Amino acid sequence: MTPDWIAVDWGTTNLRVWAMGPEGVLAETSSADGMAALSGDGFEAALLRLIGPWLGDRPVPVIACGMVGARQGWHEAPYRRVPSAPVAPGSAVAVPVQDRRIDLRIVPGLRQDAPADVMRGEETQVAGVLALHPAFDGVICLPGTHSKWVHVSAGEVVSFQTFMTGELFALLSQQSVLRHAMPGDGADDEAFDAAVAETLSRPERLAARLFGLRAGSLLHDLPPPAARSRLSGLLIGAELAAARPYWLGQRVILVGSPRLAASYARALAAQGLAAEALDATACTLAGLAAARHPAGDR
Amino acid sequence: MTPDWIAVDWGTTNLRVWAMGPEGVLAETSSADGMAALSGDGFEAALLRLIGPWLGDRPVPVIACGMVGARQGWHEAPYRRVPSAPVAPGSAVAVPVQDRRIDLRIVPGLRQDAPADVMRGEETQVAGVLALHPAFDGVICLPGTHSKWVHVSAGEVVSFQTFMTGELFALLSQQSVLRHAMPGDGADDEAFDAAVAETLSRPERLAARLFGLRAGSLLHDLPPPAARSRLSGLLIGAELAAARPYWLGQRVILVGSPRLAASYARALAAQGLAAEALDATACTLAGLAAARHPAGDR
Repeated sequence: MTPDWIAVDWGTTNLRVWAMGPEGVLAETSSADGMAALSGDGFEAALLRLIGPWLGDRPVPVIACGMVGARQGWHEAPYRRVPSAPVAPGSAVAVPVQDRRIDLRIVPGLRQDAPADVMRGEETQVAGVLALHPAFDGVICLPGTHSKWVHVSAGEVVSFQTFMTGELFALLSQQSVLRHAMPGDGADDEAFDAAVAETLSRPERLAARLFGLRAGSLLHDLPPPAARSRLSGLLIGAELAAARPYWLGQRVILVGSPRLAASYARALAAQGLAAEALDATACTLAGLAAARHPAGDR
Repeated sequence: MTPDWIAVDWGTTNLRVWAMGPEGVLAETSSADGMAALSGDGFEAALLRLIGPWLGDRPVPVIACGMVGARQGWHEAPYRRVPSAPVAPGSAVAVPVQDRRIDLRIVPGLRQDAPADVMRGEETQVAGVLALHPAFDGVICLPGTHSKWVHVSAGEVVSFQTFMTGELFALLSQQSVLRHAMPGDGADDEAFDAAVAETLSRPERLAARLFGLRAGSLLHDLPPPAARSRLSGLLIGAELAAARPYWLGQRVILVGSPRLAASYARALAAQGLAAEALDATACTLAGLAAARHPAGDR
């Protein structure tokens, strides 16, 4: 089996690869060789460990997105400035490699000068949304470690904003004093809804309510699933309050893990907004496919 | 040298002890044997390692405050409910010990049922403030890992609220993606002031501004001291916004490390409020001295 091309999603902590044929995915695999774990020649070796079995005699195009193109990654793919198409024809950066069986290019991220913001990887998912919905005009929300809200119009990214909601949740639920209040991983939808409503209407309460999760656990036996869902809701509610200009009265598409996208959809539904969710992997692959073809080639 | 009594401040990560004589401190020392690092017999051994040289033939009173009295500490000193005096006569809990040269008591923390909140250690500092300023009526702010705002009236703690500001700053500046933007430990007062003003007036911006520190560093070479002070200012501003009912129009006393108390004093001064700062150790020792004497004994 020799693929037509190979798709690569290379983030900070993970490396995922897909062998692509004319009808779509032929095979896929992944490893924990994220950008943060590698340096120097380690990148090419990590990639070949996964895709080696797919390589034949002729060079195969390999298109990658994500932190692999950061300054501290394998090869820097400098940010492109918004407003612009999420992925521009011919803008993927060719990477010098030792193994002649691969022709590797990295999709550049996007930068916004004011307010200062950056993305790497999400631009490819946004391009994928536009490939799947060519006429889409509105807002794409990509919840995750660093959630992004992206305003898209006429095929271009107009502006975007990043929130550290996922990283804050991870730090607070796993490493702060609040971890004692939320062992396990159960969820409580009612607690989530109430917390979203609280910080969405009164965002200043975020700072005031966090320690209450620990105190509620100590004094009133607040159940761990309720504490965990309440933390998630307080943080997502505060994000939605700050991101209100992005979603209010807009058409919103969610791209993220099913569980996280469902939380955001639930929070937005409480505000009367029906957001559509797209599969994150499908968007990544559609975006990488779009990045592969120079202008006019499709 | 045999002290009249021994003062102990035993927190989660540190153990500090003072040999007290008729005129005050005779000697002091400390170790990293905080509550979190100990269990079972380890508590008494850790204490004796520090105070052993001060012990003679007769039992010496030892008064401790802090997390040593938590359920997971040496011996639980159950919370007392507010409103109440910060330290009530005779409420310190006697701890069974093996070494007959010490007579150990632990000061209980305080609990507030609604909104749920707890403190351990700060009640002793509040008692110290009242010992140093017996007629004080107003608000005591104790900035730290978990900052406390305490409303005191007629010698009693009326209500209090905890903010995780210090822990959030530590997690974000040392363990999140923002750590790349703020190596070293310089400070920038102007960046601090602007950030406090921003979240104090628009607290919903906290969530929206955090990632901007990373992006500002990547795109605009935001200097590390400015990034660090801006993070501190954003968090303290959000705390002050949520704690406004505590400080607005009130007399405020700050009790904390000199550097942190100065940051809070600076932020409050920008709001036209002149807060008085007291030395945290002096407050702890005055509070432990107050806890030592049963009612009518002073």
